[in-house]
Amino acid sequence: MGGRALVQWEQNRDNAPEALHVDLYAGGPAPEEGLADVTFYQVPYAPSTQGVDERLDIITRMPELRVLQLVSAGYEQVLGLLPDHVTLCNGRGLHDASTAEHALALMLAAQRDLPRWALDQREHRWGSVPQRSLADSRVMIIGYGSIGRAIEARLLPFETEVVRVASRARPEEDVHGVNELHVLLPEVDVVVLVTPLTEDTRGLFGAHEFALLRDDALVVNVGRGAVLDTEALLAQNGRVRAALDVTDPEPPPVEHPLWDAPGVYLTPHVAGGSAAFYPRARAFMDTQLARWAAGEPLANVVRPGK
Amino acid sequence: MGGRALVQWEQNRDNAPEALHVDLYAGGPAPEEGLADVTFYQVPYAPSTQGVDERLDIITRMPELRVLQLVSAGYEQVLGLLPDHVTLCNGRGLHDASTAEHALALMLAAQRDLPRWALDQREHRWGSVPQRSLADSRVMIIGYGSIGRAIEARLLPFETEVVRVASRARPEEDVHGVNELHVLLPEVDVVVLVTPLTEDTRGLFGAHEFALLRDDALVVNVGRGAVLDTEALLAQNGRVRAALDVTDPEPPPVEHPLWDAPGVYLTPHVAGGSAAFYPRARAFMDTQLARWAAGEPLANVVRPGK
Repeated sequence: MGGRALVQWEQNRDNAPEALHVDLYAGGPAPEEGLADVTFYQVPYAPSTQGVDERLDIITRMPELRVLQLVSAGYEQVLGLLPDHVTLCNGRGLHDASTAEHALALMLAAQRDLPRWALDQREHRWGSVPQRSLADSRVMIIGYGSIGRAIEARLLPFETEVVRVASRARPEEDVHGVNELHVLLPEVDVVVLVTPLTEDTRGLFGAHEFALLRDDALVVNVGRGAVLDTEALLAQNGRVRAALDVTDPEPPPVEHPLWDAPGVYLTPHVAGGSAAFYPRARAFMDTQLARWAAGEPLANVVRPGK
Repeated sequence: MGGRALVQWEQNRDNAPEALHVDLYAGGPAPEEGLADVTFYQVPYAPSTQGVDERLDIITRMPELRVLQLVSAGYEQVLGLLPDHVTLCNGRGLHDASTAEHALALMLAAQRDLPRWALDQREHRWGSVPQRSLADSRVMIIGYGSIGRAIEARLLPFETEVVRVASRARPEEDVHGVNELHVLLPEVDVVVLVTPLTEDTRGLFGAHEFALLRDDALVVNVGRGAVLDTEALLAQNGRVRAALDVTDPEPPPVEHPLWDAPGVYLTPHVAGGSAAFYPRARAFMDTQLARWAAGEPLANVVRPGK
């Protein structure tokens, strides 16, 4: 396909097939010309949050648009903006390495007391306490998809055992259905939540699920905050620990009890967007633009244009 | 072999072969009787440091001693105390899982800013900065032995590349000799020091080695503090970062500049002794006592008795 593509990264413009005219747009005020001819638009990632940002508004000024490409996994925010004939592609897989790495960072931080050592260093204090370990743990991954597999690959060399859970059982892959959750929870040491937020997953991990966990178990959330019931976590009062990259509410208001809850460790929603994301996203965009220019089927289509 | 064994853990007494008489000693004041008959003595790990501790002194009261078993890797501290006819065994391998896990925890903590998030949480502050990643890093392991291999196994699924360095090159294992260090350093992002302290390794990583590293590279030390030149690290003033479980001096005096050095993250020598150590040490002792009772060759002999 020809036409004009609007993308974020210079690499993708420089590597694009010659037949394709490629312009750059990294967020902020809309480009002053050329929008009327855009057929392929990659919505910029991590735009400036200062001042004007018309990343989504400008879709209405692209009458020739055929493909809207996101580099996030979530796409709910654009469905209402998009004419039926536009194909929607998302960024599935591009955040896997970054998110899985952060999930391991959170598990190790909680097991090896890294937040304590950071605070001790600030106080010039050197003194140890008996240390937990990640080794020998049984780790349940709730939401065993692409990121879940990436977490498992990183976990296994730590001499851990993984229990796979997804919305529906897939016995051929040794994946349990979430309907088996209550039978499995008493036997695990660590739970990793990595599900999207849907009506089925909202509040999935609540008072009953916490109650089934062993003393000193750890719950890690790198999915969406509202999958975990914050009040139920607070009621644990340290009996079960948590390491959360996402929270509900997010961010917690400055006086919220989550900040100082015993055994709770927070990072500010940084799992998916580390440096690991960018080369994977740029490489994906190179091949996606080549597919588009050649008229080949696109990857990561979440809604084909009619 | 028969005789009396003195060990630390009840599991080992309970599982010992019937032919062996096994007593328990976990450190502190010496047992009042039976020392004269002890043939196999496991020096207790992590004894109380309060009050009397005669763990090593009592060796002189064991005239029948044939085997001294340590559960640490280092053994220099007992060589001078031991008659020539006593076989010395160490705890090589028992700390690998724990130490390798902590090495990964330090790398991830430094790359994903975990100390910053711990301090921010205390201040009820939620705000992110661009995040580094461990993925796509080239990681040099200096001291590629048993722990080095365990670190490598945990690193590879993080989409990293490992460069192996040991005191002598072993081309058949793709291990570089330390004489190649200066050629290799400019190409790596992370250096992990996991060597013992010897006259060859003291100050191994100093001003010249730091100067060869890229801006923002990371040096992790889970070996011995004096392998890294503290003054040379301080002179980097944040150009190269460090995550250190061991320091020189150790601990740093309360006014030492290491505590507040930019880009330096400290943990208080907790790598090897986490919960992962104990089941591995107890399992090793079960099989070692069985070998001893059966007259079979012992494992981990570092100095045979003459």
